[in-house]
Amino acid sequence: MLKVGVIGTGMIGRDHIRRMTRVLAGVAVTAVTDVDVEAAKNVADRLPGTVVHGSGEELIADPGVDAVAICSWGPTHEQYVLAAIAAGKQVFCEKPLATTEEACRRIVQAEVAHGRRLVQVGYMRRYDAAYRALKAVVSSGTIGTPLMMHCAHRNPSVPAYYEKESAITDTAVHEIDMVRWLFGEEVTAVQVLVPKKSRNGDTLQDPLFFLLELAGGALIDVEISVNIRYGYDIRGEVIGENGTAALGDLSPVTVRSDGTLAVPIPTDWRQRFLQAYDVEIQEWIDSIAAGGPPLGPSAWDGYAAAVVSDAGVTALRTGQRVEVSLMPRPALYEVVS
Amino acid sequence: MLKVGVIGTGMIGRDHIRRMTRVLAGVAVTAVTDVDVEAAKNVADRLPGTVVHGSGEELIADPGVDAVAICSWGPTHEQYVLAAIAAGKQVFCEKPLATTEEACRRIVQAEVAHGRRLVQVGYMRRYDAAYRALKAVVSSGTIGTPLMMHCAHRNPSVPAYYEKESAITDTAVHEIDMVRWLFGEEVTAVQVLVPKKSRNGDTLQDPLFFLLELAGGALIDVEISVNIRYGYDIRGEVIGENGTAALGDLSPVTVRSDGTLAVPIPTDWRQRFLQAYDVEIQEWIDSIAAGGPPLGPSAWDGYAAAVVSDAGVTALRTGQRVEVSLMPRPALYEVVS
Amino acid sequence: MLKVGVIGTGMIGRDHIRRMTRVLAGVAVTAVTDVDVEAAKNVADRLPGTVVHGSGEELIADPGVDAVAICSWGPTHEQYVLAAIAAGKQVFCEKPLATTEEACRRIVQAEVAHGRRLVQVGYMRRYDAAYRALKAVVSSGTIGTPLMMHCAHRNPSVPAYYEKESAITDTAVHEIDMVRWLFGEEVTAVQVLVPKKSRNGDTLQDPLFFLLELAGGALIDVEISVNIRYGYDIRGEVIGENGTAALGDLSPVTVRSDGTLAVPIPTDWRQRFLQAYDVEIQEWIDSIAAGGPPLGPSAWDGYAAAVVSDAGVTALRTGQRVEVSLMPRPALYEVVS
Amino acid sequence: MLKVGVIGTGMIGRDHIRRMTRVLAGVAVTAVTDVDVEAAKNVADRLPGTVVHGSGEELIADPGVDAVAICSWGPTHEQYVLAAIAAGKQVFCEKPLATTEEACRRIVQAEVAHGRRLVQVGYMRRYDAAYRALKAVVSSGTIGTPLMMHCAHRNPSVPAYYEKESAITDTAVHEIDMVRWLFGEEVTAVQVLVPKKSRNGDTLQDPLFFLLELAGGALIDVEISVNIRYGYDIRGEVIGENGTAALGDLSPVTVRSDGTLAVPIPTDWRQRFLQAYDVEIQEWIDSIAAGGPPLGPSAWDGYAAAVVSDAGVTALRTGQRVEVSLMPRPALYEVVS
Repeated sequence: MLKVGVIGTGMIGRDHIRRMTRVLAGVAVTAVTDVDVEAAKNVADRLPGTVVHGSGEELIADPGVDAVAICSWGPTHEQYVLAAIAAGKQVFCEKPLATTEEACRRIVQAEVAHGRRLVQVGYMRRYDAAYRALKAVVSSGTIGTPLMMHCAHRNPSVPAYYEKESAITDTAVHEIDMVRWLFGEEVTAVQVLVPKKSRNGDTLQDPLFFLLELAGGALIDVEISVNIRYGYDIRGEVIGENGTAALGDLSPVTVRSDGTLAVPIPTDWRQRFLQAYDVEIQEWIDSIAAGGPPLGPSAWDGYAAAVVSDAGVTALRTGQRVEVSLMPRPALYEVVS
Repeated sequence: MLKVGVIGTGMIGRDHIRRMTRVLAGVAVTAVTDVDVEAAKNVADRLPGTVVHGSGEELIADPGVDAVAICSWGPTHEQYVLAAIAAGKQVFCEKPLATTEEACRRIVQAEVAHGRRLVQVGYMRRYDAAYRALKAVVSSGTIGTPLMMHCAHRNPSVPAYYEKESAITDTAVHEIDMVRWLFGEEVTAVQVLVPKKSRNGDTLQDPLFFLLELAGGALIDVEISVNIRYGYDIRGEVIGENGTAALGDLSPVTVRSDGTLAVPIPTDWRQRFLQAYDVEIQEWIDSIAAGGPPLGPSAWDGYAAAVVSDAGVTALRTGQRVEVSLMPRPALYEVVS
Repeated sequence: MLKVGVIGTGMIGRDHIRRMTRVLAGVAVTAVTDVDVEAAKNVADRLPGTVVHGSGEELIADPGVDAVAICSWGPTHEQYVLAAIAAGKQVFCEKPLATTEEACRRIVQAEVAHGRRLVQVGYMRRYDAAYRALKAVVSSGTIGTPLMMHCAHRNPSVPAYYEKESAITDTAVHEIDMVRWLFGEEVTAVQVLVPKKSRNGDTLQDPLFFLLELAGGALIDVEISVNIRYGYDIRGEVIGENGTAALGDLSPVTVRSDGTLAVPIPTDWRQRFLQAYDVEIQEWIDSIAAGGPPLGPSAWDGYAAAVVSDAGVTALRTGQRVEVSLMPRPALYEVVS
Repeated sequence: MLKVGVIGTGMIGRDHIRRMTRVLAGVAVTAVTDVDVEAAKNVADRLPGTVVHGSGEELIADPGVDAVAICSWGPTHEQYVLAAIAAGKQVFCEKPLATTEEACRRIVQAEVAHGRRLVQVGYMRRYDAAYRALKAVVSSGTIGTPLMMHCAHRNPSVPAYYEKESAITDTAVHEIDMVRWLFGEEVTAVQVLVPKKSRNGDTLQDPLFFLLELAGGALIDVEISVNIRYGYDIRGEVIGENGTAALGDLSPVTVRSDGTLAVPIPTDWRQRFLQAYDVEIQEWIDSIAAGGPPLGPSAWDGYAAAVVSDAGVTALRTGQRVEVSLMPRPALYEVVS
């Protein structure tokens, strides 16, 4: 039974606690903490045997905590990840790994100095059954060498605090990690094109068309439409030399009524990716219980996503193509995925 | 943590043990037994803290066992279910509930005498996301009152021990339970029609066309093709007054290659229903941990399936339409589902 | 330029005249007649060089008429077809060939006596691109020997004069011809099952479930739902030994809006089969212009459809399985299709 | 009966002659000519009453020719179109209208000087049922104002004479006309991005990613893959403010075999667009027979396509975004479509 301490009991923290206590096997939540101590206590009250700590550092130091899950506010990620590495404890950090390229770099360097992988970052698309099936088809050679990928990331609406750059940093960052994993290559340059603006987004520039060039030459395009009303729709089609492979519609049911054959589309990311979160955390638990290393997105992946995301923001601001420059990849992170 | 004892460590028993120890939350397998004691010991050796018992009765009596899962050979189900009821313990019994109508009736009567529901039977289609979505659409009224349902149950091949009547007792029995649950009505008559015979089945009569009449008048047809080679394919379309609703293709991926747009089809029931088993057992655990009753298929459902299945076998043997006669439903089982 | 005379200028007659004058090649409508002479005159007034005749017999005798199209009321078909055969002129007769089995038999006998094929009957499904693609797949052997076929014939609603037996004689008669053509076998027995009644049909028994047995043993089921509101939907899936083949959705467009991915469904048979009518008449023109014989449904096909349809009506009235008995097939009609 | 003279009896010329003599209504091919007079004679020999002329100009002058169809080599189009305008005869000119922007401009100016529309250019996508259904959905407002469109133009392979720039001038030119028609706006700038190269194309740069900006701000992307082996596949999805609409799969049949549900994809543009050609020419005939003007792509459309295509070639050569500059649109051509 892996004993996990959770830092941050906001929405995502509580969801992971629910998952680890009511859905997954081989795990117990033995400690929690939050900047709002009362919130942490409320959560712990419903979990027999769960301790509340006054700080993340204290939780990390708790000998009753085998591994740490960081679900706190982004700007706090760096300090907790570094503390977990210092303590030699496995740590699952929700995305982003850290909020600046420099912070991500410091984490990578700390983990390299430590000498073995302790960090996994919460990019959950790699655990989605459809993306995994897509990667399997691409890897099978059925469509030949992949040359392009067309993606769409569509949200029905976004909250008021969503800013122009959120389209890259919060939305397309999922595609950034996904294409690095699916193609097994780094991103080398990005560009953002600006289509006609939807009135649904008020003053927000929406949609955007995000272009990524990969090290091997493949070109990725991502339509980012975050106020498209009709549903939460994540699409992807890989173009190979001899064919294409695409995410399916995943339709549990089809309905013939009122003059149409209709397939329901999720309205919410939870519906679409709920199971991916379950698989993500179960596989993290299993890999750690087996002595590690974690098999999911590494600190390097978190760092690379941060650098590409920064380049995307620059591209959006300037309208220019922006090249991506990564530090040399340490031997600890041999492959992209 | 619910402490479950498992009777029977054959294929399905080991699979449920794997599920309860490595996939699901809130459960521990504290005891096992099998007619082959060595087999049970081999399983227990890999599970810390799991006791091996010499008999199912002994396992049921173990105070370290809160609830029992019966995964042994069908003819033994009755005795273990009755023993669990006698012990006042919750019991999950793999299908069939028992191998004769009389045995099922005795179980129903024992549970009624006990006064509260302790028995759940392993019909897992009710836990499949697609069937649940289908039931939700039907219940929503979108297609109007349901009048008919077209089903197909297709296996790529069946093992050598599969007999003529297995098409009803092993294969269509899933549809028998499913339509009772989906329509919320009992089956009142059945008929089996015999199409041209596939050479893939050698001397076996395959396919069959199984017709079920429900209490409210709805007519269900089930194509049973158990040697159709191309895949394991379970289909269903409910015909309502104003529209229809069907199981979707559940395609995680689509591939364009060699002149076709192709969606993969499972080749095996495990691929198709793996998650349904997980949900089935997790919901059983959760309902029992919450003090019960179990919310899944009841002893009554197991009894009704047995009676309809017997009628189906008679219909297959005689070529006649056969009416189904159930005993009065005890108040303990208020609704079909 | 084939000179065609049209008997009957009601809806279907005018539609074929439009087709022959404005859509198809190699044909001119040189003469028309109708029981309502004014109606025929109105039609002819808009067609330069088209003569109006006082009777069908007069039209058939017109030396300016190479071939005859019969679009009049069903009870008049026999006399005009027989007259055309007597005149040695090719004749296209809208379905039904005649309204009784005996009348159809007399036509077959007259054509056999004449010694070469002059009659084509208007079963247009054989000309539909989707049915043709389905037949091509079945013939290719991809799915193995066909064993069953599931069909659905769905109308949004039917007019007030539609009677209980119309479901067989007007609706399912299309499937009767289609399966004979698709399987290349005669129907040997039929049965009609009665599901729960839709309230949309008021006192009409709707839907029905029509079962047909073919000479080779294949079993065909046809759901007939004529008040299902959502659209005009014709479906068919052939079950082979190794796979299945089905009519596609023929969707020109798909729309993602309001939480669904939707494919439009026709609301009307004209939308669905408009092109099939065009192809039917063009191929009839081309085969006749090439010296004949017509390649479409023969007098024998018209006769067989009538006999099976009569058996269907008996099955509907009695609730019994009814065997179909055809006279020996004359050598003139070597194959079913 | 419209009397058409056909200039050019190569592949496309013979196909249009077949169409006008064997498929469509209301038309006769009364005259043909070709640079290879023997070829023209061979064609005419099979058509009763068809005259062979020694030159296009002679054919245009023939009083037995009401309207002209130009199917000759591209560089000859200008002279024949101008001659037809001079003769005041309606002329259908296969694409391109002419091979240079200047030549197209001269045609526009000649037609404007003539004072009424006589020219239609052979962009047949506007006549495809799927594109028409797509335009109808977009126009209906179901998806809100259109903001983007994703297109793919995929060929299994291209002939040896296909050059780098053919991807724009021969392939994407169809999308250039289509998006102008579908959005009702002119193209204002283009850009060509270069993905990883397919080895199927040998030294050819394939695929390409072609971006078009429309006057109202909409952004169009076109994947051009001309050696993708798996089939001839034309796709398009319009992204609106509230939803999207896409070309359907147009599947006449679906097949379940060998572990997949498969929908056939055309291997050839003829399969995909055969009916669009029929509709294109029938509508041209009908509009001219009704006294004109032609309702299809105008000389202005041909001119605009040429200018955008030239800009695309420049963009491909330079790697730069290239702005498109059109002359002021004469009043004769009020709307894009």
